[in-house]
Amino acid sequence: MAGYGARVVVPIDLKKKPWEQKHPLHNRWHPDIPAVAEVKEGELFRVEMVDFSGGGITKDYSADDVKHADPSIVHYLSGPIRVVDKDGIPAKPGDLLAVEICNLGPLPGDEWGYTATFDRENGGGFLTDHFPCATKAIWYFEGIYAYSPHIPGVRFPGLTHPGIIGTAPSMELLNIWNEREREVEENGHKSLKLCEVLHSRPLANLPSTKGCHLGKITKGTAEWEKIAKEAARTIPGRENGGNCDIKNLSRGSKIYLPVFVEGANFSTGDMHFSQGDGEVAFCGAIEMSGFLELKCEIIRDGMKEYLTPMGPTPLHVNPIFEIGPVEPRFSEWLVFEGISVDETGRQHFLDASVAYKRAVLNAIDYLSKFGYSKEQIYLLLSCCPCEGRISGIVDSPNALATLAIPTAIFDQDIRPKTGKVPVGPRLVRKPDVLRCTYDGNLPTTKNPAALM
Amino acid sequence: MAGYGARVVVPIDLKKKPWEQKHPLHNRWHPDIPAVAEVKEGELFRVEMVDFSGGGITKDYSADDVKHADPSIVHYLSGPIRVVDKDGIPAKPGDLLAVEICNLGPLPGDEWGYTATFDRENGGGFLTDHFPCATKAIWYFEGIYAYSPHIPGVRFPGLTHPGIIGTAPSMELLNIWNEREREVEENGHKSLKLCEVLHSRPLANLPSTKGCHLGKITKGTAEWEKIAKEAARTIPGRENGGNCDIKNLSRGSKIYLPVFVEGANFSTGDMHFSQGDGEVAFCGAIEMSGFLELKCEIIRDGMKEYLTPMGPTPLHVNPIFEIGPVEPRFSEWLVFEGISVDETGRQHFLDASVAYKRAVLNAIDYLSKFGYSKEQIYLLLSCCPCEGRISGIVDSPNALATLAIPTAIFDQDIRPKTGKVPVGPRLVRKPDVLRCTYDGNLPTTKNPAALM
Amino acid sequence: MAGYGARVVVPIDLKKKPWEQKHPLHNRWHPDIPAVAEVKEGELFRVEMVDFSGGGITKDYSADDVKHADPSIVHYLSGPIRVVDKDGIPAKPGDLLAVEICNLGPLPGDEWGYTATFDRENGGGFLTDHFPCATKAIWYFEGIYAYSPHIPGVRFPGLTHPGIIGTAPSMELLNIWNEREREVEENGHKSLKLCEVLHSRPLANLPSTKGCHLGKITKGTAEWEKIAKEAARTIPGRENGGNCDIKNLSRGSKIYLPVFVEGANFSTGDMHFSQGDGEVAFCGAIEMSGFLELKCEIIRDGMKEYLTPMGPTPLHVNPIFEIGPVEPRFSEWLVFEGISVDETGRQHFLDASVAYKRAVLNAIDYLSKFGYSKEQIYLLLSCCPCEGRISGIVDSPNALATLAIPTAIFDQDIRPKTGKVPVGPRLVRKPDVLRCTYDGNLPTTKNPAALM
Amino acid sequence: MAGYGARVVVPIDLKKKPWEQKHPLHNRWHPDIPAVAEVKEGELFRVEMVDFSGGGITKDYSADDVKHADPSIVHYLSGPIRVVDKDGIPAKPGDLLAVEICNLGPLPGDEWGYTATFDRENGGGFLTDHFPCATKAIWYFEGIYAYSPHIPGVRFPGLTHPGIIGTAPSMELLNIWNEREREVEENGHKSLKLCEVLHSRPLANLPSTKGCHLGKITKGTAEWEKIAKEAARTIPGRENGGNCDIKNLSRGSKIYLPVFVEGANFSTGDMHFSQGDGEVAFCGAIEMSGFLELKCEIIRDGMKEYLTPMGPTPLHVNPIFEIGPVEPRFSEWLVFEGISVDETGRQHFLDASVAYKRAVLNAIDYLSKFGYSKEQIYLLLSCCPCEGRISGIVDSPNALATLAIPTAIFDQDIRPKTGKVPVGPRLVRKPDVLRCTYDGNLPTTKNPAALM
Repeated sequence: MAGYGARVVVPIDLKKKPWEQKHPLHNRWHPDIPAVAEVKEGELFRVEMVDFSGGGITKDYSADDVKHADPSIVHYLSGPIRVVDKDGIPAKPGDLLAVEICNLGPLPGDEWGYTATFDRENGGGFLTDHFPCATKAIWYFEGIYAYSPHIPGVRFPGLTHPGIIGTAPSMELLNIWNEREREVEENGHKSLKLCEVLHSRPLANLPSTKGCHLGKITKGTAEWEKIAKEAARTIPGRENGGNCDIKNLSRGSKIYLPVFVEGANFSTGDMHFSQGDGEVAFCGAIEMSGFLELKCEIIRDGMKEYLTPMGPTPLHVNPIFEIGPVEPRFSEWLVFEGISVDETGRQHFLDASVAYKRAVLNAIDYLSKFGYSKEQIYLLLSCCPCEGRISGIVDSPNALATLAIPTAIFDQDIRPKTGKVPVGPRLVRKPDVLRCTYDGNLPTTKNPAALM
Repeated sequence: MAGYGARVVVPIDLKKKPWEQKHPLHNRWHPDIPAVAEVKEGELFRVEMVDFSGGGITKDYSADDVKHADPSIVHYLSGPIRVVDKDGIPAKPGDLLAVEICNLGPLPGDEWGYTATFDRENGGGFLTDHFPCATKAIWYFEGIYAYSPHIPGVRFPGLTHPGIIGTAPSMELLNIWNEREREVEENGHKSLKLCEVLHSRPLANLPSTKGCHLGKITKGTAEWEKIAKEAARTIPGRENGGNCDIKNLSRGSKIYLPVFVEGANFSTGDMHFSQGDGEVAFCGAIEMSGFLELKCEIIRDGMKEYLTPMGPTPLHVNPIFEIGPVEPRFSEWLVFEGISVDETGRQHFLDASVAYKRAVLNAIDYLSKFGYSKEQIYLLLSCCPCEGRISGIVDSPNALATLAIPTAIFDQDIRPKTGKVPVGPRLVRKPDVLRCTYDGNLPTTKNPAALM
Repeated sequence: MAGYGARVVVPIDLKKKPWEQKHPLHNRWHPDIPAVAEVKEGELFRVEMVDFSGGGITKDYSADDVKHADPSIVHYLSGPIRVVDKDGIPAKPGDLLAVEICNLGPLPGDEWGYTATFDRENGGGFLTDHFPCATKAIWYFEGIYAYSPHIPGVRFPGLTHPGIIGTAPSMELLNIWNEREREVEENGHKSLKLCEVLHSRPLANLPSTKGCHLGKITKGTAEWEKIAKEAARTIPGRENGGNCDIKNLSRGSKIYLPVFVEGANFSTGDMHFSQGDGEVAFCGAIEMSGFLELKCEIIRDGMKEYLTPMGPTPLHVNPIFEIGPVEPRFSEWLVFEGISVDETGRQHFLDASVAYKRAVLNAIDYLSKFGYSKEQIYLLLSCCPCEGRISGIVDSPNALATLAIPTAIFDQDIRPKTGKVPVGPRLVRKPDVLRCTYDGNLPTTKNPAALM
Repeated sequence: MAGYGARVVVPIDLKKKPWEQKHPLHNRWHPDIPAVAEVKEGELFRVEMVDFSGGGITKDYSADDVKHADPSIVHYLSGPIRVVDKDGIPAKPGDLLAVEICNLGPLPGDEWGYTATFDRENGGGFLTDHFPCATKAIWYFEGIYAYSPHIPGVRFPGLTHPGIIGTAPSMELLNIWNEREREVEENGHKSLKLCEVLHSRPLANLPSTKGCHLGKITKGTAEWEKIAKEAARTIPGRENGGNCDIKNLSRGSKIYLPVFVEGANFSTGDMHFSQGDGEVAFCGAIEMSGFLELKCEIIRDGMKEYLTPMGPTPLHVNPIFEIGPVEPRFSEWLVFEGISVDETGRQHFLDASVAYKRAVLNAIDYLSKFGYSKEQIYLLLSCCPCEGRISGIVDSPNALATLAIPTAIFDQDIRPKTGKVPVGPRLVRKPDVLRCTYDGNLPTTKNPAALM
């Protein structure tokens, strides 16, 4: 049967650590991380990947692994993969690399995942000021469906996608990143209003040798030291794509990535069985190991032809994505809105982040009336196929964001009705999410109205 | 045939001015604006409405009316409408008012609309620093489809919806609004980072007697003077719903509005034939006159039962929406992303507004390669059924927003391809939008990369 | 506002009889029925229409009008409408007439409809041997939704469409029709197997002067007599389109009709608020009065260019249809199958009609377990948006047909479950359909298994 | 990782013949074929399967294997699989077996398939009188998409499903089958009108020892001889499900099968990457090997509770199906209709099979204008996700069937347009399907109109 399936260019052995794999994984962006494989334009190939934590977060029914997770090790990526055309000529800076996702899924035999929030001191999540504890839910897959013993009463089809896919940056681009992110890390507290409302810490994730893995480059060598100090963290999405977390990037999608180094050297990882727009819990999709079957096309000079840089250099571009025709269909949606007034009642100016925070908080408060703990809904909204929209961004002073939730994922009718919310034993959604205590002393946000 | 159709509770005569209508329109929120009609729970009724400008913006092929539009007069609303239950008992503060949209559309004989951006000095739009001129495009409707002579080569089915639907605020709520918005207006410049990137002016829209219309209350009376000074402007969406601009609120949708005054006294207006998420051009949907056929239900004590206030008072709530099963289906979408790095290359912290601005700019630059002026695309993205998503809001320091555009609305294939963007006469999309000069001297934003 | 809406070319006054209208209606196909209006290519125009019975079937809560309905009068059509190009040159035989449905709906103020089965002696329906009585259900419309007091517990959005749209036949085509249908009427009983399973009477509907209306041609004149004797009945769909009953022909659809006479002279009628595939009850959609807003295009020589005749003459063609993007979305469907084994257990050879009859019978038996009478389900499956499919047509000897029903139209979960079908008062779906006795003595079909 | 994936209960080794597999396959229905595996209610398990021909039809670029295919060997099924509840008690006659399809796909490394028509003398297809030659097209899979070098210019996502899934019949049911099918085989020619229009030969497929495989029962033993003479062929769908060919039975679907023997003993096979409604080419889906991941539930006494027999015995029932939410979305469809007038111009009475034949012929003639051979379109319509509908079944004498084709599967715009069908080199869709000569002398159907 040889010749019909996809050629495996990055295999994963789940019994091994990320750095012990045949093609050792990496968790930084840097032009000097050497490619581990080469693929030809038009060829169907397979890339396997570990979950973003490389097995650090387990299927144990405890959130301790989340609480003590080391943020310096995320995300273990497969690659880099060098792409050449049919004549063997590599992709070149200035080209556009079109990557089609022909198939994807969990690694066979490993059909489970997790959704979690980090501890407030350790990365937190979008609502970490409200929910400072580390929590975790385990999900099991039945084909296209996922269900969790920790969030009973919901089941939904996955819109599976890779959280991260990106090309290697050039040194010039890497320097731009490091400079602008250092600036926000150093001066953000003083100048950024959002820091008072969005409580993520740290403000940016700067290069660190701690936890750094660079694929084939041996740890501790001088080369490793040099690169590790410069290499960008994989947490934010950037000009090279990277951690895009676009939940609809599933089977049949196409990603048009700018090429910054010879061969394009793209990497991928952070597979998600399903994710809600925003991935609000941070460790927040249904995180899993998985595989991608891909096909590449090189659009020569495509950056110039199709992308318009916006910023001080020609490198200030963003990738383009094409979403395919195969997705779960949902008929009915319940929509929660938020406006850019924060929890203290203070008005913000056209701030979609504040508005979205409020929309998510509203949805959590509402759905928790149906027998759930707020932590269950927080994790659920982070990983179910809900849609986060910027509905209005011009009606000063309020931005208006909405969160739309497909009603069919619940085993009960969650719409408002005349009469009261149903009560009774079937609405006690036990067991709850796995959780740890929060032992820190960062301030948390109390809803003033809840105290009345 | 009497008895089968919807009872017309607010008729509109398009030959008359908003204040000359049988039930004179209003353009402010205030508890003391008297109801113009009463409807019973379960009854099907019809509300007609003018376009938001009350005819101020016309179908003339000139953008002068937009340039000189008076922002103090927006939006002319139909209502307030008082709702009682089957026993004649009115909705009460603390209830939830469920309004179902059974049908809606343009007013017969008035099947046209417009999309526009205001002048930079006069309200502008989301991208007013890039596009300071007033512009306008006229759209004509062929049943469900709209087309514009000013943006050739596109045609799309409308997802028609009312931009504004909201209940009357209580005095307590009104005071909360006025106070918090005054604060941002007065101190925003100093404290708000977003003001440097989002160039809307003014920062808020405070009460003004200028342009104020209060329905049945006679202009110039003492009562009018008092209310006009207090009454909230209708521009931002707030706790009472109001200017939600949720583009999917079409046939079959249901809106659950909190009730703050006896009878609920809801008003509606600002009909949109179609709108993109965000309504980026500001005067930015396909604005039109129209009608709604509605049915109300009162959920007694529903605010307490279903809404959880978040903020200093029990009034800090938001409405909930339910989206119905009838919408245009699109198979393929092209998706543009933006990260929270602004046009100067500066890093912002998890700022979805900045990210969305970049996503929209990226989409404009891309699509303008296919024969359009940037102004044409700016207006198009404001009114076509595109989706603005918050894709990632936790990956510090970058928020990641996306703008997804259904490819089927174009008469050409707009996807990136090997080879160059097609050229030639068919790609000259003439005529262009109607536009005025910008005569002000506020700074505009130049893309540094465009100067290289 | 003149100039923006559609020009009304066929107005209907519901207080008048079909033959008293400004443009008197017709209920036959014949080349010599004169056009009542002329439209230009590209022009948006409006055609209004009565329900197929011209008001003969009323909103009274009685099925007597159905029982005694006169089949000779169906269907009252609006038209013929002559189409000319922009230079005033009419469509010509051999052209293709593209008719786009820009908008459609019930006539304002007349928002109701009915679904019925005729008496076994008087037209019956697909299952008339099982259900020989005349029955009727009245539906009321709330915008896009329909509900019936006679079939409680269901509500669905309409996929509204004209049941009939067709061009005038030439004399040559008319003769072909009359000849082949006379043959089946005269010899069918002897030669046609299906007559034993499908109990429609008569086998064909031949021209009859009784009940004949020919638009502007005065009844009783020699011209009228001549045409009335030749003119084809409107019941079956044929080469000219006509009674296609394609349920998805809603807003945004396009119909490509062959042109057989100068001007095309197309007529339309038999508006359906909603219909299931097959329209099994015969009088079986939600029948109503209504309007169409249309736009025509003439594709010169299009018959030759796009249609391939199949049969003894170049006139043996069929129209083509294009379905648009706006339809209700349903996520879950329950599917019933039938194979071509009839109710007596006899095997038929690849007979999709027999298989579909069994699928419909299976669906009726199943759904009637949920509190409904079989007559309620029979009418429901005839008018709700269910899909009738030919799933297998090659696996001798069984054709396999399926009927797929969207589960969301019911207010209860109708899927099979562990445990028994729910019982109790809420499942008594009263009142029932309106019905008459069957006083004839044609044989009815008993399910042998039901007697055990 | 053990314990998370599905347990493989029927493995396939593609290097072995169907009868050499670990659990030898069977190709007949009979109660005495012993189960090869047992599964528990609620358990996720995996069944692998060969393509229906067991490798007899190959990926060679020649149709010879199709021309000389032995019809007696179809279809090789995996199973029977015995189902027990959580207490180990088997499913019992009268129960309903709910089988959920959690996942499915091609066997890894075997990602290709074929679509073919048999020779007119050897099974033919729905249109064998028009297309008497054996033909074949090979398809390759790129994840969810299939493309064929033999039908260039089309590519579509698969709606993958098992063609066959069914429970073992009891002896009583088996006898009913054999009797009624023998009757049609023996007397059909005389009595069945459809035989003149549908040219499948033979009329039925009766038991035959030739080519018979019975799983674990050794060929040539007395037991084998007895069973082989009685065992029903797998070609038609029947009361036990079997060859349903319902194209939407993909991921997330559920099949409710009646249970006739202890343990239910269900079998499955005939995997289809994609199929059009009707599977008109007969060997007509994209046939492939594959796997299913399934989960069973036993609904005790469910046959009585949910199914109503229709026919002489309580065994005359049909399964029910539930279609899930994940399917490719298509926006635009081109629809071809057929009426029950055959190719000679003769009128048939409400005959959906004749009508569908005409709809398919119309679609073939139309699409072949766009650069394709008719054989290419015939195969394409058999395997692409097109929908075959019974649109009207009551308008005597014409049944009206439609075939709806999603326009997005073509790389050109296939809609009728003003002006001529495009011509030129890009419309020569070469190479063509693989084909053999037809050497028989059964009559073929000529379109009379084509001779003019």
